[in-house]
Amino acid sequence: MYSMEEVFAGYNRRQATLKASSNRYAEGVAWVAGELVPLDEARIPILDQGFLRSDLTYDVPSVWDGRFFRLDDHLDRLQASCEKMRLRIPLDRNTLRQTLIDMVAKSGIRDAYVELIVTRGLKFVREYQSYENNLYLMVMPYVWAMPPQVQLTGGSAVVTRTVRRTPPGAMDPTVKNLQWGDFVRGWIEAMDRGAVYALLPDGDGNITEGGGYNIVVIKDGVLRTPSRGVLEGVTRKTVIEVAAKLGLETLLDFVPVDDLYTADELLICTTAGGVMPLTELDGRPVGGGQVGPLTRRIWEGYWKAHYDPKHSFEIDYPASA
Amino acid sequence: MYSMEEVFAGYNRRQATLKASSNRYAEGVAWVAGELVPLDEARIPILDQGFLRSDLTYDVPSVWDGRFFRLDDHLDRLQASCEKMRLRIPLDRNTLRQTLIDMVAKSGIRDAYVELIVTRGLKFVREYQSYENNLYLMVMPYVWAMPPQVQLTGGSAVVTRTVRRTPPGAMDPTVKNLQWGDFVRGWIEAMDRGAVYALLPDGDGNITEGGGYNIVVIKDGVLRTPSRGVLEGVTRKTVIEVAAKLGLETLLDFVPVDDLYTADELLICTTAGGVMPLTELDGRPVGGGQVGPLTRRIWEGYWKAHYDPKHSFEIDYPASA
Repeated sequence: MYSMEEVFAGYNRRQATLKASSNRYAEGVAWVAGELVPLDEARIPILDQGFLRSDLTYDVPSVWDGRFFRLDDHLDRLQASCEKMRLRIPLDRNTLRQTLIDMVAKSGIRDAYVELIVTRGLKFVREYQSYENNLYLMVMPYVWAMPPQVQLTGGSAVVTRTVRRTPPGAMDPTVKNLQWGDFVRGWIEAMDRGAVYALLPDGDGNITEGGGYNIVVIKDGVLRTPSRGVLEGVTRKTVIEVAAKLGLETLLDFVPVDDLYTADELLICTTAGGVMPLTELDGRPVGGGQVGPLTRRIWEGYWKAHYDPKHSFEIDYPASA
Repeated sequence: MYSMEEVFAGYNRRQATLKASSNRYAEGVAWVAGELVPLDEARIPILDQGFLRSDLTYDVPSVWDGRFFRLDDHLDRLQASCEKMRLRIPLDRNTLRQTLIDMVAKSGIRDAYVELIVTRGLKFVREYQSYENNLYLMVMPYVWAMPPQVQLTGGSAVVTRTVRRTPPGAMDPTVKNLQWGDFVRGWIEAMDRGAVYALLPDGDGNITEGGGYNIVVIKDGVLRTPSRGVLEGVTRKTVIEVAAKLGLETLLDFVPVDDLYTADELLICTTAGGVMPLTELDGRPVGGGQVGPLTRRIWEGYWKAHYDPKHSFEIDYPASA
């Protein structure tokens, strides 16, 4: 019931409905300064420090098949990121939650990528205590860091050799940020080397993460994922929970780069795409070069979890949406 | 003729004129998608990757007393940054140059901070070859990273102990970028410790730079400034040239953090503020705790250089501006 083929078939049916929709927010909606606008018309002040210094934090929950998934986990993390950066979300939790639900409902989007960005506001960080932080919200059709057709056979990645991940001592990766200079360099290197996904080392021989996704190595039935220098992913958390239900242990630890080349299976995971198998690394097959059996079971468990009332709730779409 | 008192007096006179101006661009003007708008009304698409991934580069030339200063040095550096990031400035060099000059002339601003930002555009970096890069231009009244009244006696800095500079292996600091997460952490630490300026170490015992400024250590009549892990500052270049004219040598090398504590004089430098003396470090006086004699001579030479036709040219303001 949650095989790749079935999950994607359901998604494709809903996509076809969305594409036929005449809802003005069907291609996305943004909330800026309290107003809803179609996403491609949304504008922010050029003077926002979120643009002029990337002085912001953000988070990305998702909606799947009309259900908000782990919304509170994402809001908790956003709150924690804001506290570390001395930012304050300008809406209280209930209003924020309800605004997001309303946006999704009004858009009619059944599978959504939802982005919340909190910026320093119009004043420079040094003007401490005199600034009002800004909030921007976006709801758009679900984004695939790895498209469905690629997930069927697995993606192609490289371990970057021209760029390392920004270390936690410079920028704390547990504070979700949009300072993606290292990831951008990674993608450019991956493209140059005929691959798509960049996996960044930490400069000390360990792997970290890629642009928005955690990395999980599977070897001898055990999952390993970096404990340090990475985002504490909500999708990663779900993967660990799903694996545990399958009787599989996950170790959070340093993961030497070399372990990627001897892995049985390799996957990357993020809210925008879910559990994404990698079947080629540096031009060579990972394990047998096909989506592995444990990856497949975790994949199915991941999408099944989206219907678990512990983790998700149904959105009440108006009939007109 | 170029003493602090004289230079600031001239600036204050021009400021008074600007403040009395009824020019609609007197507080700043932006160029967005080919249109000029007052700066505080300027907006950019929320979907610009310059906001959503800080996928951009930028540069900041300045105008002083009605003269553009080292504009071509800044345009050269911007061009080099774009090439490293595979970005293309959407205007040719002459049009870009002329647009900036027109903006300054129309604003009537005689002392200006001028910012050029080139972003990836609306499409994600992975969609290589299908995107159009975006350009944003801003002209605003001169920005002081250290206000004149503070320059008279010198600023107070800390060497950060909670944050290190992002290493070149993660993000190349010679590509001027707005990913200031490490600097923001530095400023917060500086504020918490009762200082203003944060000087970031490289994590290996050497000093690098602060948010937008290079660091110069003066000891026994010799200037030293980091060669690695820092922006190749245009102001730093001018400082080196001015020092050479004064018969002072500048060494570009690793600069151990410890050397800051035994310096005779310490300065930071950037286009937004020029040569800025630091007279307190970690709560203790630098050298004699006053603006030092060599800093003062370099300071005067720096502002004098703004009238050198080799480095600057006069802007032709319309009578109405």
